Amino acid sequence: MIHILFFIFALLFTSSTNAAVNDFCVANLNKADGPSGYPCITPTKVTADHFAFSGLGVAGNTTNIIKAAVTPSFVAQFPAVNGLGLSSARLDLAPGGVIPMHTHPAASEILFVVKGRIKAGFISSSANTVYVKTLKKGDVMVFPQGLLHFQINAGKYSSLAVVSFNSPNPGLQILDFALFGNNLASTLVEQTTFLDDALVKKLKGILGGTG
Amino acid sequence: MIHILFFIFALLFTSSTNAAVNDFCVANLNKADGPSGYPCITPTKVTADHFAFSGLGVAGNTTNIIKAAVTPSFVAQFPAVNGLGLSSARLDLAPGGVIPMHTHPAASEILFVVKGRIKAGFISSSANTVYVKTLKKGDVMVFPQGLLHFQINAGKYSSLAVVSFNSPNPGLQILDFALFGNNLASTLVEQTTFLDDALVKKLKGILGGTG
Amino acid sequence: MIHILFFIFALLFTSSTNAAVNDFCVANLNKADGPSGYPCITPTKVTADHFAFSGLGVAGNTTNIIKAAVTPSFVAQFPAVNGLGLSSARLDLAPGGVIPMHTHPAASEILFVVKGRIKAGFISSSANTVYVKTLKKGDVMVFPQGLLHFQINAGKYSSLAVVSFNSPNPGLQILDFALFGNNLASTLVEQTTFLDDALVKKLKGILGGTG
Amino acid sequence: MIHILFFIFALLFTSSTNAAVNDFCVANLNKADGPSGYPCITPTKVTADHFAFSGLGVAGNTTNIIKAAVTPSFVAQFPAVNGLGLSSARLDLAPGGVIPMHTHPAASEILFVVKGRIKAGFISSSANTVYVKTLKKGDVMVFPQGLLHFQINAGKYSSLAVVSFNSPNPGLQILDFALFGNNLASTLVEQTTFLDDALVKKLKGILGGTG
Amino acid sequence: MIHILFFIFALLFTSSTNAAVNDFCVANLNKADGPSGYPCITPTKVTADHFAFSGLGVAGNTTNIIKAAVTPSFVAQFPAVNGLGLSSARLDLAPGGVIPMHTHPAASEILFVVKGRIKAGFISSSANTVYVKTLKKGDVMVFPQGLLHFQINAGKYSSLAVVSFNSPNPGLQILDFALFGNNLASTLVEQTTFLDDALVKKLKGILGGTG
Amino acid sequence: MIHILFFIFALLFTSSTNAAVNDFCVANLNKADGPSGYPCITPTKVTADHFAFSGLGVAGNTTNIIKAAVTPSFVAQFPAVNGLGLSSARLDLAPGGVIPMHTHPAASEILFVVKGRIKAGFISSSANTVYVKTLKKGDVMVFPQGLLHFQINAGKYSSLAVVSFNSPNPGLQILDFALFGNNLASTLVEQTTFLDDALVKKLKGILGGTG
Repeated sequence: MIHILFFIFALLFTSSTNAAVNDFCVANLNKADGPSGYPCITPTKVTADHFAFSGLGVAGNTTNIIKAAVTPSFVAQFPAVNGLGLSSARLDLAPGGVIPMHTHPAASEILFVVKGRIKAGFISSSANTVYVKTLKKGDVMVFPQGLLHFQINAGKYSSLAVVSFNSPNPGLQILDFALFGNNLASTLVEQTTFLDDALVKKLKGILGGTG
Repeated sequence: MIHILFFIFALLFTSSTNAAVNDFCVANLNKADGPSGYPCITPTKVTADHFAFSGLGVAGNTTNIIKAAVTPSFVAQFPAVNGLGLSSARLDLAPGGVIPMHTHPAASEILFVVKGRIKAGFISSSANTVYVKTLKKGDVMVFPQGLLHFQINAGKYSSLAVVSFNSPNPGLQILDFALFGNNLASTLVEQTTFLDDALVKKLKGILGGTG
Repeated sequence: MIHILFFIFALLFTSSTNAAVNDFCVANLNKADGPSGYPCITPTKVTADHFAFSGLGVAGNTTNIIKAAVTPSFVAQFPAVNGLGLSSARLDLAPGGVIPMHTHPAASEILFVVKGRIKAGFISSSANTVYVKTLKKGDVMVFPQGLLHFQINAGKYSSLAVVSFNSPNPGLQILDFALFGNNLASTLVEQTTFLDDALVKKLKGILGGTG
Repeated sequence: MIHILFFIFALLFTSSTNAAVNDFCVANLNKADGPSGYPCITPTKVTADHFAFSGLGVAGNTTNIIKAAVTPSFVAQFPAVNGLGLSSARLDLAPGGVIPMHTHPAASEILFVVKGRIKAGFISSSANTVYVKTLKKGDVMVFPQGLLHFQINAGKYSSLAVVSFNSPNPGLQILDFALFGNNLASTLVEQTTFLDDALVKKLKGILGGTG
Repeated sequence: MIHILFFIFALLFTSSTNAAVNDFCVANLNKADGPSGYPCITPTKVTADHFAFSGLGVAGNTTNIIKAAVTPSFVAQFPAVNGLGLSSARLDLAPGGVIPMHTHPAASEILFVVKGRIKAGFISSSANTVYVKTLKKGDVMVFPQGLLHFQINAGKYSSLAVVSFNSPNPGLQILDFALFGNNLASTLVEQTTFLDDALVKKLKGILGGTG
Repeated sequence: MIHILFFIFALLFTSSTNAAVNDFCVANLNKADGPSGYPCITPTKVTADHFAFSGLGVAGNTTNIIKAAVTPSFVAQFPAVNGLGLSSARLDLAPGGVIPMHTHPAASEILFVVKGRIKAGFISSSANTVYVKTLKKGDVMVFPQGLLHFQINAGKYSSLAVVSFNSPNPGLQILDFALFGNNLASTLVEQTTFLDDALVKKLKGILGGTG
């Protein structure tokens, strides 16, 4: 009897294992992506190692002018999140560290303070209302999709946060680099931001922009 | 025979008309909205007038410093778009007019030039690449969701565009107002944008901000 | 200090530009599409020209029996809309012009009258209620997804409308062609529409159908 | 030890049962619906009876001119499907029975033949291609969302099918009733379908339409 | 005049038929799938046969220990459901037959009793509430996505049900096989289920597991 | 000039602030929820405090038989996540602690190890493949939606993880409680799991079940 059970289940599963396995879709980064993400690696080649990622275990290098670092585990770094609708990153903030004003075009964000104190805030779209909180260890805060937000170390020591997103590829548009770190013509920056030419050119110089 | 047909269909339709009509869901703006939009007005109270909107037929007032105006037909102005996944707006640009750098957190945009010439562009998130085009009458251009973009009158005369969004409530975050048109502390603006205190305070003065 | 900032941001961006850029996904029409659209062109090969389309700037040819023309900018004509969740088209209606009864299976529609006067309407599903409006220049009207609707020139002169959809590929099923413009057996048409054989065959003759 | 386990789990569950239960959302049909469906009945008032529905167990009355009947278990008849993304219906086809040409604006359909033989087909949108199959007992067929389709009894005896949809409220637009069973002006029908006045008025007479 | 109509429509349709046809996307199972499903077969190679499937017409073999069989028409068996958001299966239950406790990670389910009597139930997540019903011929029951549920023949004779899902690939995780039918270490099973070692090893023996 | 700018923007924003603010939708837990979540609190009553939550800053009580605790910040605890598509929880694992086999019916999960070592795994649906990893501080691991998974403290000291979900209300179905912690009849448990009566009754006794 037991063998029959095994047999019938095995039959069922044999047919199933020949079929698509859409429990997950580990990204094949060597193929072109599409609107919903990357093609999947063949399920039989997927191992437990694909589902774990150690890249967030190392503090980012904060010896820079913003005294901060963002280390992502988006689909490009961690292909297992492809199609699963989420991803993570770690934020390291040395004393005085700042994650500058930025948006994630494709996801909302939830931040968990692992260590230290962080002042964080976002600005709503229609009313431009500011929502700022100083968070301590263990606090969480949410940042709705597409809105300008920032994080600042609010303590004397280094701070660490882990952030999660409801997209495998949330995007990251850092305001200063979008405005001053490319070849967008200075005149266009000036016309569309009300900043003056001297400032725009100075910031382009700092941030690597031209034009 | 014909009467039987009429009878049986009528029965079917009687039962159906007592049921929900989810072909559309004209917003009842007097009730609290939820994540997917507003509760629907009772279908039997909906008329053809609900599905048309004349507010985009009037040019916006462009006698202002940006020489431009945005007139929306989002769910708040045009309740019929509730739940339909789209909305529109008109852009009026007088000579020299500018729609300043902004984002729509909740929708992509497609712009159709009805009249004149418009220089428009957006900046990608990861690579900060700039995509700028000068558009003539009849051209369309798309702006992906959540990315900074702008429109400038590129002709000698007034220009008009109609834009559409894949959301009944795309949101509109105008960069200068998000940074300088509210009570976000100047020190926070400075820390998160690398702009200096004098400039931040000047722009707050211009744009109605405090702090 | 500035160079360190530039360096650290550059590092961040170098890693990011190697990764997927999902701000947009310009369609590679040479590859097979999938349920969410086409595979993306490599982002580094995408230019500003991809995001603009001039095909709607030319009036469609209305010297035909319906005295009307539809010119689409769906994903097949304008690959940049792939994955962005929207698309557009222009409607040209000569005097007496008609866009015949049709549906878009995959999208709702919003119509903006650029020129002239247009009588437009749709029919709800459950109750078969008719919603008809005569629209003037600047009016918008919405047509919920999948419902039969039409547009008729209501003025003495030619009319022009731009329509937008919340899908890059809304589909277009023109009723008369679905019924009479193919090889659907006349007997099946008759059984499922209550039209008589002579009429069905006559309309098949007009619209190019067989069977 | 066991009691501690029970205690700690109980605590966890006490807090959880006070919270929202979104495993399901049985519709409260007495409240206004919204774009995603109806508000939920309080979970504690939901019983097993809500999740089962006996209405499809009774054959529809097919003593009518189409010799067919559709019996739905959409959200209005079976509130448990609210928010679950699916629903069902039964089709009864007496000998000679026909479900006339129709669309479901909000869902794809899968049909399973329980009894008899059914000829079914649909018409694609862009190319107007016809896909017709004669199905026997146990066959399934799919009809993509929003496309015109029909079912006809292809046997000598009565046929029965059960159909399912990927929406709790798929909608049902029967072509003849949309065109002829309401107050849509005959002139508009004629202009948008190329049918002549005599026929339109005759069909309006049959199907209960006016105008 | 008729020829001009034919000509202009033909032009429209010629351009359309060169384009993507997203009414449907019959799966090309020979290519790698992605998060939204498989790439589509070229539309011109799709025939009516793709949209029908006869595999559910044959009773599953129930001469096994569970006296039951599940026969799916998911995307792997029936490629036409790719991208359409639904699929089906048939359940055969001999006298005494049981579909053991299982979940569908990716879809809700609606069950229609074609023949016999079936006792079915599911367990809610937060409150662990049990919802059990004994269903007779013609009854439907819904099982919300991801929840443990089961079906048992409640009559003296064989029973048959057809089930539908709001996904082309709902997944099927049978509890006993997930726990005992693989190489999950017995110690891990014991630690995470509170079952004892003897039982775990016995069930692993029955169900083909190791470790 | 500046005042005109301020004026025109103010006008724009006055009209916008009267409108819906769908950047966020903080849940009004006192109203009935619907398929997409809870109705929103009036935006003008929302403060920065709504967007932060301190409940995850306190270690859960692990002095229980599983030596573990789950502390959620789902929509019921943290109303700001309503409509944002994500939520979080903390896992505390004392030495020997175990989060027993469970599923989240409505979300995928990403786990970040804050402290200690955690052995975690999940089981795929179709093939019952086991994916187990031992994670150290800083590692992340993903668990696809709806699949059975577990976490076990793999170190000598207490471990802490923060988990995030791509749903404001992911659900939590703990296997042992679903089977043994309610009034599901023992005979049904036995028939659907192949466990014997003595064991089922023993586990019901431990876990608070009846029947």
